Amino acid sequence: MRKMPISKAFTLIEPGPVVLVTTRGGEKDNIMTISWTMVVDFSPMFAMTTGSWNYSFEALCKTRECVIAIPTADMVDKVVGVGTCSGADTDKFEKFRLTPVKGKHVKAPLIKECLANIECRVVDIVGKHNIIVLEGVAAYFDDSRKEKRTVHAVGDGTFIVDGRKLDRKEMMHSKIPAGL
Amino acid sequence: MRKMPISKAFTLIEPGPVVLVTTRGGEKDNIMTISWTMVVDFSPMFAMTTGSWNYSFEALCKTRECVIAIPTADMVDKVVGVGTCSGADTDKFEKFRLTPVKGKHVKAPLIKECLANIECRVVDIVGKHNIIVLEGVAAYFDDSRKEKRTVHAVGDGTFIVDGRKLDRKEMMHSKIPAGL
Repeated sequence: MRKMPISKAFTLIEPGPVVLVTTRGGEKDNIMTISWTMVVDFSPMFAMTTGSWNYSFEALCKTRECVIAIPTADMVDKVVGVGTCSGADTDKFEKFRLTPVKGKHVKAPLIKECLANIECRVVDIVGKHNIIVLEGVAAYFDDSRKEKRTVHAVGDGTFIVDGRKLDRKEMMHSKIPAGL
Repeated sequence: MRKMPISKAFTLIEPGPVVLVTTRGGEKDNIMTISWTMVVDFSPMFAMTTGSWNYSFEALCKTRECVIAIPTADMVDKVVGVGTCSGADTDKFEKFRLTPVKGKHVKAPLIKECLANIECRVVDIVGKHNIIVLEGVAAYFDDSRKEKRTVHAVGDGTFIVDGRKLDRKEMMHSKIPAGL
């Protein structure tokens, strides 16, 4: 897992993949599956929807830190598994054979098996709408991984795997942040 | 374009496609391309990031209405075109040969050529983070369309087209809202 420029980290979230979000509550690491995320700023800042119905929410509020990990198509059963049990009674790293890796800026762990990881700090909690605003502080990408296709949750129990890539860099020239 | 149950409308946004958002400012319809969206509630409620840098923002704030239209892979050049010019000096419906269709609940138009359309009302503007919270009030889906694959913006000028679909309905049974 190699460090990637933080200025490019928004490109991990902009396509809308389902993600795994890790937190550390006390001495215990946890993971939740989240599909409701978006970019709010190139710097990068992200928003995600979560609330007290998620066991991780308390740790997120207390520590004001998390890691957004990007899983790939071959991990879809782990993603669904993580999303359908609770950290209240399950060690999800153990159950789904995911490996926590120490980050540099936050105590929540990176997930070794994921394509990419973003260490994040909570900037704001818009409680009225269950929106958490995050700032990405460091990002990592596993270039050595063969499977790089991410997965998009539809919300009805189906998932869409990344297909063909289209290049419109020339047409979009004026809108692409410098350095991308 | 047939009406679809509003309870299913969140499944149009959850996978994270790039969308077209229409507004009506005065007598003038406009369109913007937005990739920064997420679901915030099944009812449905959506969040999107936009601000005064978008010409449509003023109309959105004044009318507190918009339509989220979902384009498909064959429309990617229109999506990029709409996103790289301004409604300040361009009639985007005319320029990109898109057809405005009158909705039932809001004055902003549906886009005939799109796979789906969601009429939305602005519920809140979280100005501090440039986040607009929307409530979907009616949704429409064009079953007759052959191309149903949506497109995900990466943010670097490339786009990912929907690929294979994976079914995990059984595993996710407990988490899927009733009626889906």
